[in-house]
Amino acid sequence: MAGVSTAVVSYALNDRRGVSVATRERVLRVADELGWRPNPAARSMRAGAQAVGLAVVAGETLHGAPVLDVVAAFQRELLPRGLGVDLRVVADVAAAAELYRRWGAERRCDVVVVPEVRDDDVRLRVATDAGLRPVVVGPTEVAPGLAAVEVDDEDAYARVARYLASLGHVRIALVADPTDRLRTAACERGLRAATQDGTVALEIVPTDGTVEGAAGATRRLLTQAVRPTAVVLATDVMALAALDVARRTGLVVPWDVSVVAGADSVLCRLATPALTSLPSLATDLGEALARAVTGTLDAAAGDPPVRVPLAVGALAVRGSTSPQAH
Amino acid sequence: MAGVSTAVVSYALNDRRGVSVATRERVLRVADELGWRPNPAARSMRAGAQAVGLAVVAGETLHGAPVLDVVAAFQRELLPRGLGVDLRVVADVAAAAELYRRWGAERRCDVVVVPEVRDDDVRLRVATDAGLRPVVVGPTEVAPGLAAVEVDDEDAYARVARYLASLGHVRIALVADPTDRLRTAACERGLRAATQDGTVALEIVPTDGTVEGAAGATRRLLTQAVRPTAVVLATDVMALAALDVARRTGLVVPWDVSVVAGADSVLCRLATPALTSLPSLATDLGEALARAVTGTLDAAAGDPPVRVPLAVGALAVRGSTSPQAH
Repeated sequence: MAGVSTAVVSYALNDRRGVSVATRERVLRVADELGWRPNPAARSMRAGAQAVGLAVVAGETLHGAPVLDVVAAFQRELLPRGLGVDLRVVADVAAAAELYRRWGAERRCDVVVVPEVRDDDVRLRVATDAGLRPVVVGPTEVAPGLAAVEVDDEDAYARVARYLASLGHVRIALVADPTDRLRTAACERGLRAATQDGTVALEIVPTDGTVEGAAGATRRLLTQAVRPTAVVLATDVMALAALDVARRTGLVVPWDVSVVAGADSVLCRLATPALTSLPSLATDLGEALARAVTGTLDAAAGDPPVRVPLAVGALAVRGSTSPQAH
Repeated sequence: MAGVSTAVVSYALNDRRGVSVATRERVLRVADELGWRPNPAARSMRAGAQAVGLAVVAGETLHGAPVLDVVAAFQRELLPRGLGVDLRVVADVAAAAELYRRWGAERRCDVVVVPEVRDDDVRLRVATDAGLRPVVVGPTEVAPGLAAVEVDDEDAYARVARYLASLGHVRIALVADPTDRLRTAACERGLRAATQDGTVALEIVPTDGTVEGAAGATRRLLTQAVRPTAVVLATDVMALAALDVARRTGLVVPWDVSVVAGADSVLCRLATPALTSLPSLATDLGEALARAVTGTLDAAAGDPPVRVPLAVGALAVRGSTSPQAH
């Protein structure tokens, strides 16, 4: 319809040199009239990437933030590049690795986002072996040599410990996510670094990451002969469970025990008392991920991996924490 | 490597007739040795569907259930068919419609799931015009003529009204999701149908669906000269907000006012008092969706649309509701 060869059409549509302005405009006008759009299936056969793969283990968060909130910001940032996010919910890390193998074999994704990284995480090796480029989300210095968003959990939890110590708390406990996650280890390091002068006793209680696990751990902590006067919990829902346990144990929050949530949400604001919390990473993490992914796609061979640092903001102080009377 | 033509390889790999058992096995063995897998990009150029499209408006649920919980069950059921879910978070209904146009033009999806259907929902027309097959999630009789999961909200909310009436409540309020959603209208119809003998005064307060909107609506209801003695809220988080408002207003739940949540979750169980709730649809809805989608893909031309009914289970009665003294 444009009166030119298919090669000229291809040059015009792909904005390559060798076509006059007038011809290009005629081709684009005709394409528009025909409702023509590039077929990503056809394009991906030659060009590779069309979507960023994100496999989330069922029940897990994206570094403590609600998955869909992060994905909303991430997708918004990727949209101008025409990149989508292929989001899957999988049963466990092994299922994620199996999905990477398939994505690699089918050339369905180029970049995969790997959240909640474990010690010796099988996903990193499998993703690389499958020809995918992993972008890891984890604490500072996670997965050296790979692209990553580095969240400064250690600094954030050090600030929590210093805040509680400044209120006079000398027995602090952390009800933590599973210990095989690098994020959990970083949080623990932060608390330890800020309390290493020996004036504060620190107790770390790992859980399976469920609300029931957090409730059980908190109950054990609060019914000990010598109990902590401040408890930090990894997530908002865990912290709600801790408030419930304190109530049932006959302890008043914050007078008998202070409670801190590791990630803020509307639930922290609605709780009674409202929960002192580290901020939610949702939007910031989505944007940082987009920078890490687009940087990785744009990198030339031999460039160092893209590392995007992400600081955790200031603690929101609410009614669940108070000075501790000795 | 198998010593046969590409046509024979294609026949063998696609399990079509005209190839001997021995040849088929040889081709499959060689393909396996080579690590060959079907390329879905190539296949989709000819065959169409490879993923089910699901565009969720940011901040919305899937018929009151958390999106990722529904998607986890949905994906699990679709996996044996080799079908994935292409989940996108979009800003609004218009953005979802625009995405459908692109999916249709690019032949990227065949079936799209349309949740939280509105009056005169533009998405239904756009999806059909774009050559996609919509599977709608809504109340009974939603979108006649299209495939759907039909959730019996009307019956569920009628049971809530009868339960509250049986406790002696004569002034009941519903703090509702936005009124343009068909689901909201069905909930309202259920409450009205069960209270039409005139002994119960019913007040419906639509909101924008946010927790702030729910809190504001509840505050207005509870500070009226004649206030309701029972308030039903569309979601778990809205009901948490109502508990907070009651507390700040100096009202004791359930003695001064009973509170019911329209969808259960761990939050309802952790609240103080724990919230009487309709069950969460998450897993049931994911499975019903998978049946509707696979039924639609398997339907022959001229078959009636697949309609999968989904009943809402029994109310979980907890501490937030009690008999009302007149």
